[in-house]
Amino acid sequence: MSEVEIGKAKSARVGYAFDDVAVIPTRRTRDPEDVSTAWTIDAFKFELPVVAAPMDSAMSPATAIALGKMGGLGVLDLEGLWTRYEDPTQQLAEIASAKDEDATAVLQRVYSKPIQPELISQRLGEIRDSGATVAGALSPQRTAEFADIVLKAGVDMFVIRGNTVSAEHVSKQVEPLNLKEFIYKLDVPVIVGGAATYTAALHLMRTGAAGVLVGFGGGAAGATRNVLGIHAPMATAVADVAAARRDYMDESGGRYVHVIADGGLGTSGDVVKAVACGADAVMLGTMLARAAEAPGAGWHWGSEAVNQKLPRGQRVWVGSHGSLENILTGPAASASGTANLIGALKRSMATTGYSDLKEFQRVDVVLNPYG
Amino acid sequence: MSEVEIGKAKSARVGYAFDDVAVIPTRRTRDPEDVSTAWTIDAFKFELPVVAAPMDSAMSPATAIALGKMGGLGVLDLEGLWTRYEDPTQQLAEIASAKDEDATAVLQRVYSKPIQPELISQRLGEIRDSGATVAGALSPQRTAEFADIVLKAGVDMFVIRGNTVSAEHVSKQVEPLNLKEFIYKLDVPVIVGGAATYTAALHLMRTGAAGVLVGFGGGAAGATRNVLGIHAPMATAVADVAAARRDYMDESGGRYVHVIADGGLGTSGDVVKAVACGADAVMLGTMLARAAEAPGAGWHWGSEAVNQKLPRGQRVWVGSHGSLENILTGPAASASGTANLIGALKRSMATTGYSDLKEFQRVDVVLNPYG
Amino acid sequence: MSEVEIGKAKSARVGYAFDDVAVIPTRRTRDPEDVSTAWTIDAFKFELPVVAAPMDSAMSPATAIALGKMGGLGVLDLEGLWTRYEDPTQQLAEIASAKDEDATAVLQRVYSKPIQPELISQRLGEIRDSGATVAGALSPQRTAEFADIVLKAGVDMFVIRGNTVSAEHVSKQVEPLNLKEFIYKLDVPVIVGGAATYTAALHLMRTGAAGVLVGFGGGAAGATRNVLGIHAPMATAVADVAAARRDYMDESGGRYVHVIADGGLGTSGDVVKAVACGADAVMLGTMLARAAEAPGAGWHWGSEAVNQKLPRGQRVWVGSHGSLENILTGPAASASGTANLIGALKRSMATTGYSDLKEFQRVDVVLNPYG
Amino acid sequence: MSEVEIGKAKSARVGYAFDDVAVIPTRRTRDPEDVSTAWTIDAFKFELPVVAAPMDSAMSPATAIALGKMGGLGVLDLEGLWTRYEDPTQQLAEIASAKDEDATAVLQRVYSKPIQPELISQRLGEIRDSGATVAGALSPQRTAEFADIVLKAGVDMFVIRGNTVSAEHVSKQVEPLNLKEFIYKLDVPVIVGGAATYTAALHLMRTGAAGVLVGFGGGAAGATRNVLGIHAPMATAVADVAAARRDYMDESGGRYVHVIADGGLGTSGDVVKAVACGADAVMLGTMLARAAEAPGAGWHWGSEAVNQKLPRGQRVWVGSHGSLENILTGPAASASGTANLIGALKRSMATTGYSDLKEFQRVDVVLNPYG
Repeated sequence: MSEVEIGKAKSARVGYAFDDVAVIPTRRTRDPEDVSTAWTIDAFKFELPVVAAPMDSAMSPATAIALGKMGGLGVLDLEGLWTRYEDPTQQLAEIASAKDEDATAVLQRVYSKPIQPELISQRLGEIRDSGATVAGALSPQRTAEFADIVLKAGVDMFVIRGNTVSAEHVSKQVEPLNLKEFIYKLDVPVIVGGAATYTAALHLMRTGAAGVLVGFGGGAAGATRNVLGIHAPMATAVADVAAARRDYMDESGGRYVHVIADGGLGTSGDVVKAVACGADAVMLGTMLARAAEAPGAGWHWGSEAVNQKLPRGQRVWVGSHGSLENILTGPAASASGTANLIGALKRSMATTGYSDLKEFQRVDVVLNPYG
Repeated sequence: MSEVEIGKAKSARVGYAFDDVAVIPTRRTRDPEDVSTAWTIDAFKFELPVVAAPMDSAMSPATAIALGKMGGLGVLDLEGLWTRYEDPTQQLAEIASAKDEDATAVLQRVYSKPIQPELISQRLGEIRDSGATVAGALSPQRTAEFADIVLKAGVDMFVIRGNTVSAEHVSKQVEPLNLKEFIYKLDVPVIVGGAATYTAALHLMRTGAAGVLVGFGGGAAGATRNVLGIHAPMATAVADVAAARRDYMDESGGRYVHVIADGGLGTSGDVVKAVACGADAVMLGTMLARAAEAPGAGWHWGSEAVNQKLPRGQRVWVGSHGSLENILTGPAASASGTANLIGALKRSMATTGYSDLKEFQRVDVVLNPYG
Repeated sequence: MSEVEIGKAKSARVGYAFDDVAVIPTRRTRDPEDVSTAWTIDAFKFELPVVAAPMDSAMSPATAIALGKMGGLGVLDLEGLWTRYEDPTQQLAEIASAKDEDATAVLQRVYSKPIQPELISQRLGEIRDSGATVAGALSPQRTAEFADIVLKAGVDMFVIRGNTVSAEHVSKQVEPLNLKEFIYKLDVPVIVGGAATYTAALHLMRTGAAGVLVGFGGGAAGATRNVLGIHAPMATAVADVAAARRDYMDESGGRYVHVIADGGLGTSGDVVKAVACGADAVMLGTMLARAAEAPGAGWHWGSEAVNQKLPRGQRVWVGSHGSLENILTGPAASASGTANLIGALKRSMATTGYSDLKEFQRVDVVLNPYG
Repeated sequence: MSEVEIGKAKSARVGYAFDDVAVIPTRRTRDPEDVSTAWTIDAFKFELPVVAAPMDSAMSPATAIALGKMGGLGVLDLEGLWTRYEDPTQQLAEIASAKDEDATAVLQRVYSKPIQPELISQRLGEIRDSGATVAGALSPQRTAEFADIVLKAGVDMFVIRGNTVSAEHVSKQVEPLNLKEFIYKLDVPVIVGGAATYTAALHLMRTGAAGVLVGFGGGAAGATRNVLGIHAPMATAVADVAAARRDYMDESGGRYVHVIADGGLGTSGDVVKAVACGADAVMLGTMLARAAEAPGAGWHWGSEAVNQKLPRGQRVWVGSHGSLENILTGPAASASGTANLIGALKRSMATTGYSDLKEFQRVDVVLNPYG
């Protein structure tokens, strides 16, 4: 049933979104107090399986540090406002106060200022000084240009993130980044993506990445579908990449590459489903942008919204749903699924009888087609 | 067709909601006057296959008695306002008059008052004095603590109800309730749930329960899905648990455990479909909370909305759709499906040619996928 | 694929609505001028395959006559206002001017006046005097009571119409109508229904009926689903009953029982699809109630809305979309599909290359699941 | 899975719309600068795979010329306002300023003026004088009448376009156009359609057409479905006709007939999906009517809206989304998918690793059933 004939000359894989599925309890239940959400990648252990999306609306050096102290992994966008401006406070305010019809133009203008390499070092230093795990993200297009600066500044984890990142980028214009060589030479673990299929993810795993991002980011999924006709139903994407993880572990003689869902994660229920479909952790943008501390002040946008010729996203209002702590570990003030995400994950695991994330990847799932 | 591949590493069971199905008449019709909706569990016979959900918005001692006199089974929540307050009139008024944005906080405050064991005895006594069948409900977490008081006070039927109740609850923190032992020792029939799968229900049946609640309660299904990622499409859940009833009857040499649908029941049409999918009776919260006599005064909430750290429901407006009698046996003033539920059930049975509930479980059903 | 497992103890037939399907042209096209929509039942030939639903909102003696003169078949409800009141003008005005919240009560009151047998004779006489084909409808419940009067008054066609009519009605209260005997004794052709399955329709065909109504009437489908949980997706119902027609023709040695779609027909596109699925003609309520001449003055209701204890429909606003002629044969003033129904049917037949209704039942159909 | 039983007497082909599918990247990515969208039909090469729909709201001689200069193919409707009026400026203004309720009547009146044959010559001459490729369109009904004038005036490409055009039109009223003979005699390549199935397209290919239009035009799909019950889910239609192209190439010993999607194309994402399903090019109406230069001034209508007895479309507001250049090659000011359609197509091809349109027809596609 996973392949369907669209027409006589075309078949398609059937894909499902998180909204199409749900977790279903069976014969055992468990005390939520006995449940662990801890997650280990390379030498790093995190109490929360939460990686921040490197987006200016969610992550400043301060919120990256705060997230690290709470048990997650903060990741700063090294091509964002914090490496373009000594102090981006005014630019953030301009974005927040722009009228809807001007927002894209404001983003385009504010992000047209060149990246200052010395600010990359400075920002990473600020995070390191706090004692938190240091992680920064570059796009694949500019990784070659800035990687040395990043490494010299010192990072614990390196993130290469684009809407779609492949192990084999072809260009007649510039020498493309050879991911495999690049990762091989690095001392630090690399998380790379997005990818959305078994094959794409398997090739990324073969580059030596420690983790693969599944999806194309969440904030602009609708726009990506309208503009590019590209879409990855997330439940299927995660379950396919989890299969690549299993097969690559066999092929590599035991390397476990972490699968990190990156997209379609608007509520704690979605996070539950991502793990249920096979994710080891989640990369969150929208959910963290809803924190009172978030730099976006209730607004959220991604780098694809900044493109000068073909914007594929826009500034969207996500509101403020409590402190970062409320959002991660509660208490939640409402039943909207936007707060106490870890409490919800633990309760869902307990209700279905599981005690750790790896086990919970086996939980029963129901598809409710017409819900 | 009941198993679908979500992705290469995950399959899912396909599930259907009551909205996805409908009953369809065939070659015979019958006079509605010749139809019986009577239902027998253990030594108790009810003219209406209606069990009240133990929720403060629907059930007070008075409405439990009234429902019993009309032929159904009233069930009082023994952890609700009536066992926390000598007279909860003021608390109910506070809940009803709270602004939307304050409602969760008001619920949390009002329900933080401890349960008074002596009020459990008193409330059950009030119901017994009326001559109605006496039934009270506890959550599995507190059953061990209060069961003795309940039994001493005297009940005809004992309900253990949580969002998800399993036969095998695991905890390192406290000695969990051993359902099988507990039920074995009791003198009174026990109804227990919710459960939503064949396996979960089969294990509950093996504990000796007289009835199993199917579903996770109806009032907060949407919130449960958003917050916990957990969902049970009800038509499938009921039909699966009905199969467990059949198989357990075989395995036990003839014990018939009653299947009681508990969730997704907003209209008389839903009640019809629940029986059509295999339910022996229905547990109603929303539909009874719409009665003029309901303590909620048009508002409806469940105990999951009261949680201090992770509320999974909220106070919702259900309005007033007539007297309890209107709602159960009519007359109905409109075609909304919220009143004269027994009249509708009888007419639906008659239109399809059936004369009692057990037979009606065999009625033809149509799935309208894109309706 | 036509049977799906809802759960382990229940399967369902998959059903499709007219909205789920569409007609699709293939290799041949035809001139609309060469297309015929003529239809013959028993000795009667009609240029338009349109039978009026016997509903007071659409059919008065005057509109029944007008429809007949245009080439369709008018049918008067012999249990409606025209046989309860000498002149129902005032009652129709009361219904039209009632506030929404009072409409059900007004209907109940107005229809509580007893039927006057002599008015049955008088109304049928009025139609006969006009020269139009005379047809009247009774419900199965009252057919025995009024049939003699109807026959004495003289009809060309007799319609027995209820939400669901079966060949085998069982009652301990009253002697039920034996349809087979009744039809056998009659001199005039009988159209009977609704029925929605192969089996139900086959049994009705065996009673000797000249035509079978497929569906449960259109105006109250939503309410029937909410209140009774009963629903018949119409594309499937028509295609199933068309198979019963074929099989009964074989079994009876050549009797062709006409299949008349009755429900789900809101636009000319729906009428096209009904024929494409196998209907010989359509029974229209809503579409005719939209005529400027319709007695409902823009409002539409059915007899199920009048029920004193369990109304299963209500007065709905359908508006005025032109004269009866506009609605049947145009011209249409807009592209809403509510006018020039025969022009649309002819053009659809021409676009797909067919020249008469019987051939058009073979046209290719596409199912667009997620449209 | 492509054939489903609607009911016992009717089966249907399952069809999918562009909204149901999406393109999905796999293991390779490519530099957008290395991607070509060039397209060749007969002796004509176009940088953009864009053919204008011959509709007065989008195409005047001026916009046809402008589109040609940008690398697409402008097509003038030779039965539209430009061949009925010396200067249709006033008529376009009347259409644009009509109130909604009057718009159909205004269209009917304005288009009732007869076509002036000499204006056909004059308009084609204006386009030829500009140096752009000259293409005009006639309906099949009037092709015989005006073809000689068109050919004498000189065209590079001839378009015969109707809602549904078949290779075998049957009429008792007039001698129908013999497409095969007609095309055989012509010196210029002919594009003909719409067709929506494998068989219909195969027969059109056998007439000698250089290109086949797939679909029934986009502007009035909803109205066509409501009024005629006819609909062609576009992803399936394109994929079916692409199979006809392949099979006809085999049968003809190598003739490649171009498949041009004509309908359902509201965004650049839809254009991407059309090519992904097998289209060689797209015919655009709505998207071009959104240009600031478009004659419709933000309004869009098709010839089916003008019909005097059965209008099957209406004037709709599509707004102004930038200059024709913005719409075709950007820059886009928003992420709505209405501008920089070629930039989006190139980026989508690059993201999935393809370098030309023919290769991109093989891209992986995902079906997201419940999205």
